Amino acid sequence: MEQQLIRWLEERLGPGPKVPLALGDDAAVLQHSGSRSVVTVDLLNDGVDFVLPDDPPQRVGRKALAVNLSDLAAMAARPLAGVVALALPRQGAFELAQGLYEGMLPLAAEYDLVIAGGDTNTWDGPLAISVTLIGEVTDAGPLLRSGARSGDAILVTGRFGGSRLGHQFDFDPRVEEALWLITRYPLRAGIDTSDGLSLDLARVCRASQCGAELDKAAIPIADAAYAWAEQLGDGSTALDHALGDGEDFELILAVPPEAADALIDEQPLACGLTRIGRFVSEPGLWLLDENGSRTPLDPHGYEH
Amino acid sequence: MEQQLIRWLEERLGPGPKVPLALGDDAAVLQHSGSRSVVTVDLLNDGVDFVLPDDPPQRVGRKALAVNLSDLAAMAARPLAGVVALALPRQGAFELAQGLYEGMLPLAAEYDLVIAGGDTNTWDGPLAISVTLIGEVTDAGPLLRSGARSGDAILVTGRFGGSRLGHQFDFDPRVEEALWLITRYPLRAGIDTSDGLSLDLARVCRASQCGAELDKAAIPIADAAYAWAEQLGDGSTALDHALGDGEDFELILAVPPEAADALIDEQPLACGLTRIGRFVSEPGLWLLDENGSRTPLDPHGYEH
Repeated sequence: MEQQLIRWLEERLGPGPKVPLALGDDAAVLQHSGSRSVVTVDLLNDGVDFVLPDDPPQRVGRKALAVNLSDLAAMAARPLAGVVALALPRQGAFELAQGLYEGMLPLAAEYDLVIAGGDTNTWDGPLAISVTLIGEVTDAGPLLRSGARSGDAILVTGRFGGSRLGHQFDFDPRVEEALWLITRYPLRAGIDTSDGLSLDLARVCRASQCGAELDKAAIPIADAAYAWAEQLGDGSTALDHALGDGEDFELILAVPPEAADALIDEQPLACGLTRIGRFVSEPGLWLLDENGSRTPLDPHGYEH
Repeated sequence: MEQQLIRWLEERLGPGPKVPLALGDDAAVLQHSGSRSVVTVDLLNDGVDFVLPDDPPQRVGRKALAVNLSDLAAMAARPLAGVVALALPRQGAFELAQGLYEGMLPLAAEYDLVIAGGDTNTWDGPLAISVTLIGEVTDAGPLLRSGARSGDAILVTGRFGGSRLGHQFDFDPRVEEALWLITRYPLRAGIDTSDGLSLDLARVCRASQCGAELDKAAIPIADAAYAWAEQLGDGSTALDHALGDGEDFELILAVPPEAADALIDEQPLACGLTRIGRFVSEPGLWLLDENGSRTPLDPHGYEH
């Protein structure tokens, strides 16, 4: 639905001098008074992105802020300020709002982000929480989805799959990692994996008008992906979950091959940095097995 | 509830170098890369701020954007860009989203605002729509709530009351009016009347640590306030509605007396500009009748 709406909007909206990049990336890029910033918004809903009261408000608040920080990371932007809008169920509204902020404030402090304001309402509906963040672009940024070229290596941070077992709430947005990398190495494109490794990679491919080959054995699979596959017992594999679960909130990066060699050698990130394949000129996604045989990969993950 | 939460948050958050003004005004003020901007968010909910399907999506979308433009007007900031987050009921989600944007886009164009991005979700709850706007501060701004001084005249744009008869959806945010005024006249403080003339005036008084006297006969009462009082037939007067209905989205301004004289004489705004009283040093609100007798006025309006 969201992709359909974006296509409809793209015919009606477009970039302009004040907004060099609007729809279709992790954040919009703004140009004003000689400075560039990015702005991103994510709205989380009870029953979709979390389930009250099983997921306590502190965890929900943390997640609502963290997913937006991850969008800033995807643009390699430094967090500046945020605003928070809450639609709270009437019953216990104040305590719920407190809990949400108790989850947000420590994370905001950790990322040097100021919660600058908000709007707080009560209603007869379930909890909806919308966070908008503004970030500063470095001289090397912003990092877009559209810069990957055939031959670029595909690097990823961290590990993938099984996020429902807890990672979807507890993840660390890769803000410092993105800023560290973009100020030292040529990064051509990037995205965060909110909806699924294969689906988000396909978005980079589409924006960059290219395709990608993944080395099956190279994909870093989280322990939780194995646990989740076992728990489901539906014949799905840990690799399936790594490719499609989403809410990993890791980075996918397009990096020129020599720089990728250097980065893989250096291993500068505590969360790990893995080369999982390469961008190719032919549109599409493929999985390469150890014998070099290539099978098409359907991008899959969470569709809004 | 919202005021209680703001007080709780004020102990935990505060202004800093990146955010010179955070909670407690119509928008937050950001300082970065040598430029100043303001950011504001408003979340509108089905059943509270509008009622679907009686209020068509186009009207709802227009209102969601217009209330935020009114917050920029209150800060005398020029609209730059906005992002929109939607939580849509699953049934008919795409058509509803289209309708909302059909209401937003013409208004955005009119105010030279770019819709730069958004987040669109479906869920089992009712419609919630959150709009965040970023505005540019002029050299003379931002206009805050906190600058009124005893002796300043209270000027207002437009007329008040009865907004439920249609004005709550059809109002024109006073963006151009605010920018025109602030670049030509000394404005000491300002607010937009989203919650009610008396309640919003009380907020300026509190922020400015002063009080205010209103000249009863001077308050510009909208025709709709008379119609609404008659329709309710509950003994309430048109003046009651002008003082407390809210959603007028007019400006209340604190202006030094000589500048106020000149402005009232010049009458530069098509929507009208009326002097309705003066700020006084003693905290509180009063209504002065034509004989000069003074009665305390309880600030009233919409409490979030």
